[in-house]
Amino acid sequence: MFKESGHARIGVVEGDDVVDVTAGTSGLSTELADWLPGLDTSWKVLALLATLDKPRYAIADVELLPPVARPPKFLAIGGNYRSHLREVEHLDIPLSPHQIWFNKQTSCVSAPYADLVMPKVSNALDYEIELAVVIGRPCKDASAEEARRYIAGYMVCNDGSVRDWQMRTSTMTLGKSFETHGPTGPWLVTADEIGDPHTLRLRTWVNDELRQDAYTSEMIHDVYAQIAELSTVMTLMPGDILATGTPAGVGVVRQPPLYLKVGDVVTMEIDRIGTIRNRVVDA
Amino acid sequence: MFKESGHARIGVVEGDDVVDVTAGTSGLSTELADWLPGLDTSWKVLALLATLDKPRYAIADVELLPPVARPPKFLAIGGNYRSHLREVEHLDIPLSPHQIWFNKQTSCVSAPYADLVMPKVSNALDYEIELAVVIGRPCKDASAEEARRYIAGYMVCNDGSVRDWQMRTSTMTLGKSFETHGPTGPWLVTADEIGDPHTLRLRTWVNDELRQDAYTSEMIHDVYAQIAELSTVMTLMPGDILATGTPAGVGVVRQPPLYLKVGDVVTMEIDRIGTIRNRVVDA
Repeated sequence: MFKESGHARIGVVEGDDVVDVTAGTSGLSTELADWLPGLDTSWKVLALLATLDKPRYAIADVELLPPVARPPKFLAIGGNYRSHLREVEHLDIPLSPHQIWFNKQTSCVSAPYADLVMPKVSNALDYEIELAVVIGRPCKDASAEEARRYIAGYMVCNDGSVRDWQMRTSTMTLGKSFETHGPTGPWLVTADEIGDPHTLRLRTWVNDELRQDAYTSEMIHDVYAQIAELSTVMTLMPGDILATGTPAGVGVVRQPPLYLKVGDVVTMEIDRIGTIRNRVVDA
Repeated sequence: MFKESGHARIGVVEGDDVVDVTAGTSGLSTELADWLPGLDTSWKVLALLATLDKPRYAIADVELLPPVARPPKFLAIGGNYRSHLREVEHLDIPLSPHQIWFNKQTSCVSAPYADLVMPKVSNALDYEIELAVVIGRPCKDASAEEARRYIAGYMVCNDGSVRDWQMRTSTMTLGKSFETHGPTGPWLVTADEIGDPHTLRLRTWVNDELRQDAYTSEMIHDVYAQIAELSTVMTLMPGDILATGTPAGVGVVRQPPLYLKVGDVVTMEIDRIGTIRNRVVDA
């Protein structure tokens, strides 16, 4: 998703360019979630054919928007990387052998290069790189084996976490939901381009310092098991975002904790997906 | 909201009738949330004028729909009635002096007389009557004093809870989000008709047995304090639903626990708002 002449557009990335496949289609939705159910191979062929006569921009020249700006649901799993579980052992965080799910509010979704706003009420802002799954088709009671069919694609997500607000209740909800604390992107990489999502390297830098460096293979509950568990309870819908957990290296576990400061730049990269970058600014 | 000839319509309740104020307005949204920002006194006068020449149905003859079918957010507070806190003392539920918020998934919203589906994976289905607040205008950083201005109105809500799934993680999310476990209604009673929402009597019957009977005055964090806390973190949006806590009398606290069975009918009434009624059915 990107902005052109003030309007949200759906673009297909080709090399360093983005092609506006929604150009000349006024009246059609520019909400990506509306298109996800058709996002299989045939749709991609059509989209690529459609790019032949469409406007083309250098990615560097456009403003990238969140690939899914208003997901129906935005769920995140806690304690899902072995290295992260080890590093939080000294904190009083309730654990479970079951998948620990909480919601980020859909209102905290923000763009891949948007500012991260330091809350007025806290200085305990921390980062968590996560592989984000975007659901492509309505999904209920899927087995882990069937789960992959429901994935539209993947993004990088920063599960921005205000640690004092997160830890003062066991549900974590408010500390995970501050405005601007859900940067996603830089685009949606479709599932067929990734294949197995459990071999990807994730890295976070704060300014120039590497802080998180791990592989998605370290997940305790893998992506497919997550979809199976959630779809036992609820219907997952096109555009739903699942943040699949963060590895070791967050700021809260340091002694003393090392939180983000105004002016810091957080860069997150997942191999074969892309990079998001967010500067911390005053409220 | 009600259904007429297969279409969702916005109705104004007058006595035992509902007047279809969206009749003859094709092209206008029938999603109530779109209308909430204008739902002040002047809108009500216009709506009442509009009822003069609109179709009218006996409420008993139409199918009532959830007043807000797809809220942007559906948040609920835990442990917010003194009597409920006392009755759960013997359970291992983490408490906090702070407001404990979790999400019900927006996909679990259901109609005031819809069936409550017993999950395939649990027999621990329980009920919780709650006063539901519907937000009318975008709300960020509101004080408790300002909070009332942002309330569009009130509904009855059953915060359906699958206790084993709720209690196996501290975040409670999955046990609160099973499909059909968020009946709301029977309609939206606008805030001006209620005035102070902290004097309302709530009662739940299972079949003919009275199980919950309390007043909203018993809340620990009142409605206005809840809006203030949430809006410190996030922008509350038109159509957001806040379930404001349940009083004593739920089934899980009995020894042994007394859960709902297929065939049970759960009736919930809040004075001056109305009654919802949901039958438990097999998956």
